[in-house]
Amino acid sequence: MGAGKEFLDAKERALNLLWKDKSENKVDKGIERILYIINKSDDYYTSSSCAGRIVLIELPKIGDKMGAKFLGKWHRQIEQSEVKLAAKKAKTGLLWLLAQSPILHIAAETNSAADKLLKTAISCGFKHSGLKSIIGKNIVEVCSTERLDAPIGKDGSLFCNEEHLRLLVDISNEVIDRANHKLQRFERELKKFLSTLKTTKH
Amino acid sequence: MGAGKEFLDAKERALNLLWKDKSENKVDKGIERILYIINKSDDYYTSSSCAGRIVLIELPKIGDKMGAKFLGKWHRQIEQSEVKLAAKKAKTGLLWLLAQSPILHIAAETNSAADKLLKTAISCGFKHSGLKSIIGKNIVEVCSTERLDAPIGKDGSLFCNEEHLRLLVDISNEVIDRANHKLQRFERELKKFLSTLKTTKH
Repeated sequence: MGAGKEFLDAKERALNLLWKDKSENKVDKGIERILYIINKSDDYYTSSSCAGRIVLIELPKIGDKMGAKFLGKWHRQIEQSEVKLAAKKAKTGLLWLLAQSPILHIAAETNSAADKLLKTAISCGFKHSGLKSIIGKNIVEVCSTERLDAPIGKDGSLFCNEEHLRLLVDISNEVIDRANHKLQRFERELKKFLSTLKTTKH
Repeated sequence: MGAGKEFLDAKERALNLLWKDKSENKVDKGIERILYIINKSDDYYTSSSCAGRIVLIELPKIGDKMGAKFLGKWHRQIEQSEVKLAAKKAKTGLLWLLAQSPILHIAAETNSAADKLLKTAISCGFKHSGLKSIIGKNIVEVCSTERLDAPIGKDGSLFCNEEHLRLLVDISNEVIDRANHKLQRFERELKKFLSTLKTTKH
C-alpha cells in the first residue's frame, strides 16, 4: 500500500514546520524520539506536540485564556522555590499552577491506521486519547488524564501557605513523572507496533 | 438507509440499561433531554453520560483513584458552606475539590455519522471531544476543557482560608454554569442537525 499524494504533501509540509521548530529549539526534548519514530513510518506524521509541563500562569479573569500571561514554564520536575520566584512577577488577576500531561496530534493515512494508533496510545495509559477527525483527514489526539489546575494566588500574592504549596508542587512533579513513564512505554510500544506494520506490508 | 441488526441490538441493550438507571434516579436531570433527542435518532444511541458536577473527594494517596471516597457530590452550583459541611466527614488523606464538565458517550452506526456528531459537539464548545473507536464500533466522546482539580485539605482539615475557598467555589460554579450553556447549545444544534438527517433520508 503506497501513501496517497495528498497525504504525502501534507506530511512534507508538517515535517518542514517540525524541522523549523527544531532549529529554533521549540520542540520538547522529552518527546523528540517519539516524533522521529512516528514520522519515519509511511502511515503517519505528527502535526503538534508537547511533552507535558508545569506552568505558572496569570489570568485577568476566570476563563480568560486570551489574556493569560506565562510567569513560569518548566518541562521537568520543579522546586517550590522556583514557583515562588516566578510568582514575584505577578501583578493583577488570578495565579494558577497547572501541571499538564503530554499531548500529541498525529495524522494517519487511513481510518484503520488511526484506530490502531489510538488503541496503542490508550493501552499505554493515554486514556484521554481520541480521534479528532476521520472524514477528510484522520487526526489522532494522544493525551492523558493526570493534571492539576489549581488557583494559588491573587493580585500579586500567594494565598497558600508553605505546606500547601509544597503539596501542589509534589503533585505537579508526580504528573510529570507519570507522563515520562507513559511516554517511555508509548515509545516502546510504537517501535514494536510500527515494525509489525512494516513486516505485514513488505 | 436502515440500521444494521447488530447496531439495533446493541442500542436496545443500551436503552434498557438507561431506563433501568432512570427508574433508579441515576440519570442526571440536566442531560435527560439530550439523551432523549439522540436516542430517538436511528443513527445513534447513548451509552453513558454525566451532566457535569462538583465533587469533594478524599484520596488516601496521590493518584489513588481506587481508594477514593466521595464526601460530597453536586450536579449544580453550590455554596461555600456545603463544602465545609461535607469536609467534616474527612479523615485521612488528601481532600480534593473537583469541578467536572459534562461527559457523554454516544455510539454511531457509521463512521460518517460519528464524524458529523463529533463536529457538532466541537462547534458547541465541547472542544475536548473525540472518537474513542472507529473499527468495530463508532464511539463519540463528548467533553469539554473547563475543570478544576484542586487539593484543599489534608487528614481531616482544610488548609485554604475563607477567601481561597470562596474563590475555588466561584470557579467550580463557573464550570457548572459554562457546562449548562454548552449543553443548551448542544441540544439546539442536535435538534437542527438530526432533523436535517431525517429530511435527507426520507
